This record gives sequence, structure tokens and C-alpha cells, in this order.
Amino acid sequence: MLPHIEFDAAALELRLLDQRILPSRREYIICKNGRDAARAITEMVVRGAPAIGVTAAYGCVLALNQALCTTSWNETLAKELQILRTSRPTAINLAWAIDRMEKIAAGIDNGKQLLESWILEARKIQAEDIAICQQIGANGADLIANGDTVLTHCNAGALATAGHGTALGVIRSAIAQGKKVKVIADETRPFLQGARLTAYELAEDGIDITVACDNACAHLISEGKVQTVITGADRIAANGDTANKIGTQGVAIIAKYYNIPFYIAAPLSTIDLQTPEGKDIPIETRSGREVLEFNGTTVAPVGVNAYNFAFDVTPAELIAGIITEKGILRPPYPAAIAALFD
Amino acid sequence: MLPHIEFDAAALELRLLDQRILPSRREYIICKNGRDAARAITEMVVRGAPAIGVTAAYGCVLALNQALCTTSWNETLAKELQILRTSRPTAINLAWAIDRMEKIAAGIDNGKQLLESWILEARKIQAEDIAICQQIGANGADLIANGDTVLTHCNAGALATAGHGTALGVIRSAIAQGKKVKVIADETRPFLQGARLTAYELAEDGIDITVACDNACAHLISEGKVQTVITGADRIAANGDTANKIGTQGVAIIAKYYNIPFYIAAPLSTIDLQTPEGKDIPIETRSGREVLEFNGTTVAPVGVNAYNFAFDVTPAELIAGIITEKGILRPPYPAAIAALFD
Repeated sequence: MLPHIEFDAAALELRLLDQRILPSRREYIICKNGRDAARAITEMVVRGAPAIGVTAAYGCVLALNQALCTTSWNETLAKELQILRTSRPTAINLAWAIDRMEKIAAGIDNGKQLLESWILEARKIQAEDIAICQQIGANGADLIANGDTVLTHCNAGALATAGHGTALGVIRSAIAQGKKVKVIADETRPFLQGARLTAYELAEDGIDITVACDNACAHLISEGKVQTVITGADRIAANGDTANKIGTQGVAIIAKYYNIPFYIAAPLSTIDLQTPEGKDIPIETRSGREVLEFNGTTVAPVGVNAYNFAFDVTPAELIAGIITEKGILRPPYPAAIAALFD
Repeated sequence: MLPHIEFDAAALELRLLDQRILPSRREYIICKNGRDAARAITEMVVRGAPAIGVTAAYGCVLALNQALCTTSWNETLAKELQILRTSRPTAINLAWAIDRMEKIAAGIDNGKQLLESWILEARKIQAEDIAICQQIGANGADLIANGDTVLTHCNAGALATAGHGTALGVIRSAIAQGKKVKVIADETRPFLQGARLTAYELAEDGIDITVACDNACAHLISEGKVQTVITGADRIAANGDTANKIGTQGVAIIAKYYNIPFYIAAPLSTIDLQTPEGKDIPIETRSGREVLEFNGTTVAPVGVNAYNFAFDVTPAELIAGIITEKGILRPPYPAAIAALFD
């Protein structure tokens, strides 16, 4: 698969594979400053909580580089980082990455020196994310049996991370163990991350992938066509309630009704101890036009509105396990999560 | 709203409003023989179980008229009716209407005389369907409280019947009682009956309508944005298990999880005593291309397939009530349904 987050330290440019138009076209967006990176996140050129974190880290670098051209670069930088921080509200990895960069900055007064340190730190975040995904994959692979079909929602793959993926990382690792695994990708309206991105990256890897409309989930599960559900996460509250792409909550409820396991796969950076419960997670709402338009054509009658919540919250009680790089968390989650961070 | 099933007895033509392209274009398809009608049903020019029944009745008329030009019209007719009968597999109203027409034919040997009788019978089926929908509406209206928001899936409205609608008929009747009612229409992938057809006919009536992606259902219900769910049905088994548009089953499971009532609204002609349970209902599968293509553009990578089940089966245990023209059936359904047909 094509690299999708590439930083050029010589040119001080961030190249992002434009995920809005994959797989029909493979084009890169070039970010030259913090606002370019913020816009790329807001407009979903890049999406997926860990990938947003990596992009935000490089976004800090770009913001700093631009700020260094101004008279009071500290102030400029603070302002630009605030714009970056608020580019999307739900995925906590965005704030996590910026916090981590700011921690590095604490001891460094020299701008040029900070730039060098930040480039190293952003590269480290990117490299670590791949290693973390591989560890998540290794930790979760045993949850998938030979011959299983796994249903996933949205894209929690290489394109949503620095590589390998979280939910798709678990699938990839299970296949690497020699297991035969089929995947069903919910198409994931309205952005079609499943039909476009999950199908793209799994097909590239030669993995057996079939797309289904989001609303086919109950039929597929009740017909015995699915053994396990694994999705990613955008933010996990301290009690285990998990925000992920809109539709995840419904899939989890249906999985519970038919008694098949529903797992979350996510790095520790997705767990937000400052958010006690799911109801405290801010849920992004986007324009209803994203729901009502296809290729620029409005399908609904003129004047009709649409809801477009980008995420929903799956209650912890529906989650059979949270697969992290430090092992699989099991209920009760408040204790399991607290123990992990102790 | 425009009439959508119009029979011209002088021209012996059936005019069907093309529901595949609504609301952006309002065009009619002309059916001149049984196969035209069968094709219109198969290709979803007309859809919705009661509307398919009415179309099939007129399709019998057209098939007979064409058969009368052949030497052995009885044989030709039998063959054409078989094609009509198998034009779609799930909605039982199709077979119900043809059975009813065949019953009329039993006592009539003269072809021309039969044609006249069938035109009258088809018109009767159409007129009865409107009256039935109005009675369903009257019977169900009290289930909606003033200020409620009702979520519906697919289109069970005027366009799915001869007029007024089943699920939307209940909503229309509640509003006619003076209640303030809002409606959320699941967009209903892949054919978008909700975003296109439900939104169209409710907006035409000035009813407050908002579209949502199918996958937003759990979020909307858990946020308290929905008080009641009402959908139509394509076939109700003798035990109350109900086939309806793909996605209905998931909505019913989610409604149960959040403890809000899920109702089916359907005429008695949708109940199939010959089908003991939901698992006995044939579920139509359609081309995966309907899932993967938008306006002729494929969104998924080349070579990737998609599931496209047109219907699913909601277990009777999830259904709070079945609203019919003879009153509201309540669990246990096997007894309630048997009593109704006794």
C-alpha cells in the first residue's frame, strides 16, 4: 500500500494521501504549516484517531517552523497549536499528541533547537504507532479462530494509523499466524470508510473482503455469517464507554443480542482518564450535506435536513474486551483501566 | 403528491411513477403487458409490499389483454402470471393479489368478460388499499403522543401503497388528530427509500422530516431523540416474525435495548399463514453493484464484492404491536394472528 503520512524534513512538508477520494484516485495533499494540517484533519483528508495523532505531531512541527518567521514565535505557536487542537473534537489522540509535543517544548527556549527536537519526537510518535499496532495485533490475534469471519465498522486499518492498523491489525496478525479469516466491512455512511478504505487496504493485502451496507449487520450476524466484531476507537472514557465512528454503538447492541463478541482495538493514547464516562465525550456533528449529497448531487428533496453525527458512544457493558498494546482489558473496565495507568 | 399507480382502461396501459429517480425527476414508466409490469416490480420502479400487490393486480389485466391476442390465451396467461408472481420473492402481497385475481377467474371462461371483471377487481384492490391504509392510520394514531418523534425505516408511505401509507399512514393520522409529530427517516441504503421517497412525500405534506444515515439509529435513540419506531412489512409469518426492508431488524434490536416501542404497520394481506416462522421467508438478494455504485461510479476497489440482501426478518419478540386495519395485534402473536383469521 502507498505510504499515507510522509514527512519531508528537508522541505519541511507533510504529504497526506487524500483519503476522501480513495481508492478511485491516489493523490497527496501537501501541508506546509499548522493550519494546512488542521484543515486536513477537519476536512478528513486524514482520519482515524491514531493517524490524526501522528498528523497533529507533524502539524506542531509545521506550526513551529512557520512561527519562527514571526517576531514573537512563542505566541504565534500557541495560537496555531490551539487551532490544531480544535480541528476535530472527538478523537483524544489529537490532544494527546499535542500534549506530548508540548511536554518536550517545556525545557527548550531556542526555537531552532525545538524544531529539531519536535521533528524527532513526531517521527518517534509515528514509528511508535506502527510498533503499537503490531503489538495490538499480536495481543488480539488469538481472539480470532481459524475460519472466522470478522465484521468491522469504518476503517481502523493502516490508513487510520501509522501502519498495520488497530482492528485491521488484529485481523492481519491473525492471518499472519496462518489462520484463514474473512472480513465484512460495513460501508460506513456517509464517508464510506468501509467500502472505500477498509476494502482498499485489505484487497491490496489479498485479504478476503466483502462490503455490506451498515444496515445489513443484524441480518448477517443472525444468519451466522459473522463470528466476531472488532472496531477501532476515537476515545475511551475511564469507565470503558467508547466513542467510535457513528454506527459502532448499533453494531455492538446487535452483537450482544446475538451473543457474539464485540471488541475494541486501540492504543493507550485513545484512553482518556480525564473523561469519566461516555456521556462526557464531545460528539462531533458535521454538515447534513455529507449525508444528502452523492458526487455533488442532492438525493433528498430540496430543503430537507439530515442529522450527521460523526461518532457515537458504545456503552462499556457491550464490549467483550479492549485490545491494547499492553494486553486485553476485560470488564469491569473502570478497574482494568485504572490498573493499566497505575 | 403525484398519483403513482394509474391505470388507463381505454388505452389498457399502467402508468407507474418511477421511484428509482424520485425526487430529482418525476417520470412515468408505461406498462403495456404483464412482463412490463413484472419488470417494473423487479427493477423497483414501484416498490413497497401493498403497492406491489396493486401493480400485480393490474399486471394480471395487462397479461390477460396480451394473452387474448394469442390462440390459446389460457396457457399464455398462466405463463405470464407465473413470471409476474416471481418478479420479487419476499413481499407476500404480490402472490396475494394474483391469487385474488385468479379466484375471480375461476368462474369465467370468456376472455373478454374476464378482462372486464379483472379491471374492476384491480381497481377494487387499489381502492381498498387506500381505505385499509386509512383504517391502519386510525387504529395506530393513538400510539403516537403529541410532541413525539417517530423514526421510520425505508418508505412505508403513499408511494409504498395505493395511498396514505401504512407506517406513514399512522403518522399522517396522528397529525390529523392535531398532534405535533416529527419524523426521522433512515436513509435506507442502498436504494435510499428514506432519503428520497419518505422525505419527498412527508415534505410535500409539510410534515417535519429529518433524514439520518441508517447507522445513526442507536445514537439518536440513546440520546432521547426518538420516542417510537414504526415501519411497514413485506411479509409477516404466522408467528409474528416480520420481513421488512434490510435494516429493520437492527432498528428493532436497538429500540428494544433502549426500551422504546417498535411497531409494524401493515394490512392483513401482508400476513402469510402459510409461512410458520421468519426463517421460512425467502429473502431476496440483489446485485452487489447496487451497494458499490453511486450514479454509475464504483466507490470500492475493483473486484471487491458486496452483500445486498433486500430484506431481513425482525423476530416477533421485538415487536410491540402490529397495526392492521382490524386493530392492533399484541403478543403472543401466534394466537393473535390465528384469532384474526378465524
